[in-house]
Amino acid sequence: MTDKDARTPARWHKSYVEGSRPDIRVPMRQVHLTNGRSVSLYDTSGPYTDPAAATDVRRGLPPLRQHWIVARGDTEEYPGRPVRPEDDGIRHTSPRGGLRNLDAVFPGAPRLPRRSREGGPVTQLAYARRGEVTPEMEFVALRENVSPEVVREEIAAGRAVLPANVNHPEIEPMIIGKRFLVKVNANIGNSAVTSSIEEEVEKMTWATRWGADTVMDLSTGRNIHTTREWVLRNSPVPIGTVPLYQALEKVEGRAEELTWEIYRDTVIEQAEQGVDYMTVHAGVRLAYVPLTAGRKTGIVSRGGSIMAAWCLAHHKESFLYENFEELSEILAAYDVTYSLGDGLRPGSIADANDEAQFAELRTLGELGRVARRCGVQTMIEGPGHVPMHKIKENIDLQQEICDEAPFYTLGPLTTDIAPGYDHITSGIGAAMIAWWGTAMLCYVTPKEHLGLPDRDDVKTGVITYKIAAHAADLAKGHPGAQEWDDALSDARFEFRWEDQFDLSLDPVTAREFHDETLPAEPAKTAHFCSMCGPKFCSMRISRDINERFGGDAAAGSPEEIAEGMLQKSKEFAARGNQVYVPLTERPEQFETAAD
Amino acid sequence: MTDKDARTPARWHKSYVEGSRPDIRVPMRQVHLTNGRSVSLYDTSGPYTDPAAATDVRRGLPPLRQHWIVARGDTEEYPGRPVRPEDDGIRHTSPRGGLRNLDAVFPGAPRLPRRSREGGPVTQLAYARRGEVTPEMEFVALRENVSPEVVREEIAAGRAVLPANVNHPEIEPMIIGKRFLVKVNANIGNSAVTSSIEEEVEKMTWATRWGADTVMDLSTGRNIHTTREWVLRNSPVPIGTVPLYQALEKVEGRAEELTWEIYRDTVIEQAEQGVDYMTVHAGVRLAYVPLTAGRKTGIVSRGGSIMAAWCLAHHKESFLYENFEELSEILAAYDVTYSLGDGLRPGSIADANDEAQFAELRTLGELGRVARRCGVQTMIEGPGHVPMHKIKENIDLQQEICDEAPFYTLGPLTTDIAPGYDHITSGIGAAMIAWWGTAMLCYVTPKEHLGLPDRDDVKTGVITYKIAAHAADLAKGHPGAQEWDDALSDARFEFRWEDQFDLSLDPVTAREFHDETLPAEPAKTAHFCSMCGPKFCSMRISRDINERFGGDAAAGSPEEIAEGMLQKSKEFAARGNQVYVPLTERPEQFETAAD
Repeated sequence: MTDKDARTPARWHKSYVEGSRPDIRVPMRQVHLTNGRSVSLYDTSGPYTDPAAATDVRRGLPPLRQHWIVARGDTEEYPGRPVRPEDDGIRHTSPRGGLRNLDAVFPGAPRLPRRSREGGPVTQLAYARRGEVTPEMEFVALRENVSPEVVREEIAAGRAVLPANVNHPEIEPMIIGKRFLVKVNANIGNSAVTSSIEEEVEKMTWATRWGADTVMDLSTGRNIHTTREWVLRNSPVPIGTVPLYQALEKVEGRAEELTWEIYRDTVIEQAEQGVDYMTVHAGVRLAYVPLTAGRKTGIVSRGGSIMAAWCLAHHKESFLYENFEELSEILAAYDVTYSLGDGLRPGSIADANDEAQFAELRTLGELGRVARRCGVQTMIEGPGHVPMHKIKENIDLQQEICDEAPFYTLGPLTTDIAPGYDHITSGIGAAMIAWWGTAMLCYVTPKEHLGLPDRDDVKTGVITYKIAAHAADLAKGHPGAQEWDDALSDARFEFRWEDQFDLSLDPVTAREFHDETLPAEPAKTAHFCSMCGPKFCSMRISRDINERFGGDAAAGSPEEIAEGMLQKSKEFAARGNQVYVPLTERPEQFETAAD
Repeated sequence: MTDKDARTPARWHKSYVEGSRPDIRVPMRQVHLTNGRSVSLYDTSGPYTDPAAATDVRRGLPPLRQHWIVARGDTEEYPGRPVRPEDDGIRHTSPRGGLRNLDAVFPGAPRLPRRSREGGPVTQLAYARRGEVTPEMEFVALRENVSPEVVREEIAAGRAVLPANVNHPEIEPMIIGKRFLVKVNANIGNSAVTSSIEEEVEKMTWATRWGADTVMDLSTGRNIHTTREWVLRNSPVPIGTVPLYQALEKVEGRAEELTWEIYRDTVIEQAEQGVDYMTVHAGVRLAYVPLTAGRKTGIVSRGGSIMAAWCLAHHKESFLYENFEELSEILAAYDVTYSLGDGLRPGSIADANDEAQFAELRTLGELGRVARRCGVQTMIEGPGHVPMHKIKENIDLQQEICDEAPFYTLGPLTTDIAPGYDHITSGIGAAMIAWWGTAMLCYVTPKEHLGLPDRDDVKTGVITYKIAAHAADLAKGHPGAQEWDDALSDARFEFRWEDQFDLSLDPVTAREFHDETLPAEPAKTAHFCSMCGPKFCSMRISRDINERFGGDAAAGSPEEIAEGMLQKSKEFAARGNQVYVPLTERPEQFETAAD
């Protein structure tokens, strides 16, 4: 499918809900139905789907939040850390220096980085605790259809995070917490083996177009700094990273050469660029490494294995754990949100919920308390591979140990036997764990365990996870969640095919699938579909029954109902009991197909 | 993908486990691993995947069970009901008589139908109650790796069914019950709008090749009788139908013209052909119809809507309900298993678990008791569209009301918003309800609500549902279920890529996905993949750690562990702390991709 399909769909338009001030404009996807009604849906696609907004990836998105940040007066611009060649993985020692393409440097207007003026926390958590409802909080309140006070309370209590680096003014604020809509993250990122800067930016806009609420840039190859700059400047959603990956590139992949100074420098580099949340594997402590020795699949988290290797090489406690308080003060000065990584998550059904995993989880709970004391918003990352019967124990323990900090889970995958379909093995676990309280789901694509996702894999992963997230919103009884299902089911029952397509998570595919068997235009209004054919359509029979009975017939005593039914069935008979289209009235295109 | 890919895979062969007698040979899929071990998996694909077996769809499969049936001496051959033109939907009144292609009549050797000699039940249920372990029971015991006595007990108690019509001797026996592996059904069937006999037979063999345990032929167009004959004679798995569809064809789609006599004649016609289980919507009673009037999507079951229309037209109780005992005696004489249809199942999230659904369920419980009293094996069909938080109530109520009779559910779909992806919306619900006790899952394809599934849709639907079924087997702790996951995870951790592919539910797709990014042969043995690239592979780092620690390091007091670790890390350092492949050692094909 082409961008056009998604960017300019036939019958919906971008609308904005205005807040208490004209510069608070919350984007919505307004779907216009053929019955005159319209339905508005949560929209993550940013200005790209607004024909009125002229976007240019070489200029970047408008800095929506810039004056909110400046107006708070608690941050200041400063020269910032100079960008060095090694930030893009270029070294004199390297046989292959130079950017892949030198014109790749982001051409948009340069902006000085900002940070806390006094060094104290300039975070949404700090503001919420002070009782302030920021424009960002009002924005998400309108977006989630809850009161701003609920948003402030949840953030203040540490039960929700609003990732919004002061150096990423381009984002449309969103919130992650169990009292809000379940969110979905999509991973992008080149690796040593494949893909380019352009592809990564395109993957980001593509993922948000289909509903990704945040995007993680997990690049590990060259041009990491430059790729990230392009992604950040063009992203309407919060961007997450794993600074450890870039730090490792700076020491040419030799884990034992990592130092706190190199890591710290990398975190500042990324904070100045505007990364909104960072995965930090500070829970992988020296003493936990042996706990993984007896596992079937050892350590499958990249960050976890790197830190384990470092701890072994030096036989020292993790430098992330040792310097966690200082690290927290840095993040607080930019409002970077922690995503405390589960470096020891299980990589197979056999290793689920073992001692290594839970030992680390207890440490993450402890670190979360340190982080919040420093004013840093904090999420906790979760597994991994977990069979269905062990999922609840997982989230219940996380909520208890981590003081209800937002849980951010990968899957979990409910079986190991289906490489090529792990978006499904994990979508099952994701829906369940989200129902039970997970705040954000990290998507898994069909390529998991096998290769890097391409454009179609990214879309399939996002759609699958939007299904899991919405199924959980329904199960949690999130206010308004069911309206979407109801609108689509009404359209289905009334044979408003175009409305059914337009209300779908993926209108393009729904329309394509329908047209494969019934391409002719008349079929778009036909009172049946190719599944049962005209004579067997249960929905039309059932609508027939509805018309003859009306809702009222269900009321009254058994006798009254029986009497009412007798009446109705007489009318029914009087009209010739016709519940089907006689063969002779069947439109020609089905005749031919039928014989 | 081609048939060949699936029929003659590189490194597995068909093996047979022999029972107490040489003619009990249970097929297994024996996967040979590169480490010399082998894993045997449940195999539904029939003789088609056995190079030693010469199959010919025009001759049909060998009648494996024929002499078991004859040996019991309780059945006899008889002339049977003459096949009439209207059995294939051909009428003098029709402007378009004649089979689509006259040579379509099944050319295999004709066989006289059999039925009970004295008219009493000749069912696996009757034998089990008498304490007999039939060859069929021994066959499934070996297939499920449980004792034959457990099989007999579960069948005798009505908690499991072994669908095996005396006129379908071609099947490899299988069992459906919560104490056994969760099964998956695939629907095929032409409709008035599209598809041919050849396609239906091909869909059946294709579905079983990927793991379908039973197949339902839901044909509604012309050539119903002939299509079914071809499918039955070539099917290694039990075949289910909905006789009401063909009966309606015989009255040219006028529901009110249906009679008990026409229906009864159709049931006998199909029983003589060898249909193993029949969906009967006898629970749709006159008094329940008004309960659907207030629904968002009314009645979405075809059978349910047809019976509701009949009840209204005549203002009479359902002829299926009224004649249920006689119907049961007919089914008992052929060992046709009941699948009591949920004609009032919800068709949207809004209608889930409503009074109409549960009123019918109570009636199904009552009918199940009548059926078993007549010696008929019985399953109960379930919803439909149900949000996650209402699924447990559903199965718990079914198990209580229906005396633990096997539950056979469609999905359930956990949201309405994703047409085009309903294999996923329903796969989520299917995994959960199977974990909680559903015995068989009816698959849903990506085309649900939109069109008729093609070959690829059938495969996607089956694979998705095999995932849900296996995830449930794991959660239920089914003996041996996790061995499959463990074998694949071992292969993954040891970078035995070919083994990982061969152990996958879909080896073809797993291999294709891997080769997309790393096509070169060396990559098949490479100790990393394209996701992280050579420098970042967590698994190799982790294996490194494993080698240095061994399982033993995890034992002993904290001091001992610390001491052991100190030792290990010295060795580690001595070996140059090497956890990555140095850039210079990276194979050329990655260099090019990396720059």
